[in-house]
Amino acid sequence: MLTFYNELHSQHRGRHEFFRGELVPCFEKPERVDQVLAELGRRGLGQIVTPHSVPPMTLERVHTPRYLSFLRNAWSDWVALDPANANKDAFPAVWPVRTLRADIEPDNFCAKLGLYSMDSGTPITSGTWTAAKTGADCAVNAAHALRLGERATFALTRPPGHHAGADFYGGYCFLNNAALAAQHMLDDGARKIAILDIDYHHGNGTQSIFYDRSDVLFVSIHADPRSEYPFYLGHADETGHGAGLGYNVNLPLPHGASTQAWFAALETACLRLQMFQPEALIVSLGVDTFAGDPLSHFGLQSADYLRIGERLSYLGLPTAFIFEGGYAVKELGVNVVNVLEGFDTAL
Amino acid sequence: MLTFYNELHSQHRGRHEFFRGELVPCFEKPERVDQVLAELGRRGLGQIVTPHSVPPMTLERVHTPRYLSFLRNAWSDWVALDPANANKDAFPAVWPVRTLRADIEPDNFCAKLGLYSMDSGTPITSGTWTAAKTGADCAVNAAHALRLGERATFALTRPPGHHAGADFYGGYCFLNNAALAAQHMLDDGARKIAILDIDYHHGNGTQSIFYDRSDVLFVSIHADPRSEYPFYLGHADETGHGAGLGYNVNLPLPHGASTQAWFAALETACLRLQMFQPEALIVSLGVDTFAGDPLSHFGLQSADYLRIGERLSYLGLPTAFIFEGGYAVKELGVNVVNVLEGFDTAL
Ligand SMILES: [Zn+2]
Ligand SMILES: [Zn+2]
Repeated sequence: MLTFYNELHSQHRGRHEFFRGELVPCFEKPERVDQVLAELGRRGLGQIVTPHSVPPMTLERVHTPRYLSFLRNAWSDWVALDPANANKDAFPAVWPVRTLRADIEPDNFCAKLGLYSMDSGTPITSGTWTAAKTGADCAVNAAHALRLGERATFALTRPPGHHAGADFYGGYCFLNNAALAAQHMLDDGARKIAILDIDYHHGNGTQSIFYDRSDVLFVSIHADPRSEYPFYLGHADETGHGAGLGYNVNLPLPHGASTQAWFAALETACLRLQMFQPEALIVSLGVDTFAGDPLSHFGLQSADYLRIGERLSYLGLPTAFIFEGGYAVKELGVNVVNVLEGFDTAL
Repeated sequence: MLTFYNELHSQHRGRHEFFRGELVPCFEKPERVDQVLAELGRRGLGQIVTPHSVPPMTLERVHTPRYLSFLRNAWSDWVALDPANANKDAFPAVWPVRTLRADIEPDNFCAKLGLYSMDSGTPITSGTWTAAKTGADCAVNAAHALRLGERATFALTRPPGHHAGADFYGGYCFLNNAALAAQHMLDDGARKIAILDIDYHHGNGTQSIFYDRSDVLFVSIHADPRSEYPFYLGHADETGHGAGLGYNVNLPLPHGASTQAWFAALETACLRLQMFQPEALIVSLGVDTFAGDPLSHFGLQSADYLRIGERLSYLGLPTAFIFEGGYAVKELGVNVVNVLEGFDTAL
């Protein structure tokens, strides 16, 4: 398994996030990737390389230029407001709901923060852009390697990506790595790409980016959004729109769903993926489905992740794994690498 | 000037609000109304009465039943989450931007907070519903008194209302008092009502509630939303939609606009109001246009408020004044009562 590693991921190191009304230490922290990297090394799962930088145009295939410009300049704009801000992460406090406009970008920086975000759990820090951009490089490189003949690749990066939309951040995500990977393969000549999102949380960003298109099938297994983040998307009745009708598959599971129910959903997902006959598969690999995850309520055990990798391998598709969520830091390395090893050894 | 006073306003007493990323003491506090009440008493401007309670149906003419139900139960739902919440105000931390759904109400209370809000500067407290409902009673009573032949009335209440939409709160506002007053008069047989909003901030809620209707003309003089709250609405190109086209007039003024420019805009507003020939006028009376206001950047002096009242009186319309913003607490009474006295004595 060829791994593209984001050496700059730790430049995104949030101090706090708002969680249920309180400022708490960030769940999404650099140690997450460190654990996975260490476990990869221990098991010797293959080469670990640093990605080439991709041009801005690659990002603009998924994200709006206006949003990218905001994100690139956000930290310096924030500190320009007040030098004391250098010691504080930036959070939004006002946002455009129904009836409010998103077409005019306000001059006020706090208003821009709200225009381009969906929560106050996602700090913008001094290194956010650098880490997110290098992470996107990882994802696009991992996808490109499939085009060059690799059977499977892994983008080991943070911050994660699947909650980020075309023009907003949230859920710890800024650039949608999975969407960028899929779009890159299409732009490189592929005609059909599938994305399977097995993070505990619905990949609302990825869904929304491809919702009206038939060249990307999006399939997601996740906790019911009625009770879990992202709350406002991920229902079973979201099946795509226009040309995309039938190319979006949500498999929400209730709070506390059994591991058996989870694997049954995986079978449904695999069936849909096979019927689509994609040229490659992108996996949004979150392991916050783990029983010990501090944010989640599913019950998967470490050994289950071997089975997941094995099952995905049987699809017989060139596959790029993109690291998403998972907050039980101690077990994170084992769980993620179990998926990869399960995939590799099933062949 | 017959004044309807909300005796329960101080039940809404926020501990803090988020302002530019920090938790700060609330600007919108009970002392605001106390100052106005004291000044009204000092000048003996007329009878001060308590309003009759209006039925839920009256509120449902402007706000969605789902939103009203949320608001009525918000505090008990918040405390039910955790008894320790009784000592904390409730703030949203996640919200449905573009591509996210508002049609399904999540079960999760924090997600409901975000579904029904536009900022984290507006605390929900134990007494918020009581204060807001009694405030709405004041506004509807003030409007009804015009129907019964009063020349001018005043709804002295807080929290304010003009930022609240049909199904969201924000900008210190929960129920849209001005919209409820206008709608009540229409339901009571009036055919055309005008609303003039002279608060420093654009009345985005009021605009959005009547945006596609021709029976309510909405005219607003306010700071340019590119740099001031509510940021995402209030531009000059918003002129109404469908049947409402031509019945929405925004007169944004740049940061630091002169008092001369403000009064020139008032003349434009008055011209539009006269052309509409409404049966009554509702004035969203904010005095955060005052030079000493801590949140604002216009330069009106206390004497200017006498001129405003006088100018509005010359329109010759039955007029209900609804108290909105204004945060220079010490001068608040004088400024507000100057408008009312200017109106009364111009005749
Ligand atoms: Zn997740
Ligand atoms: Zn105001």
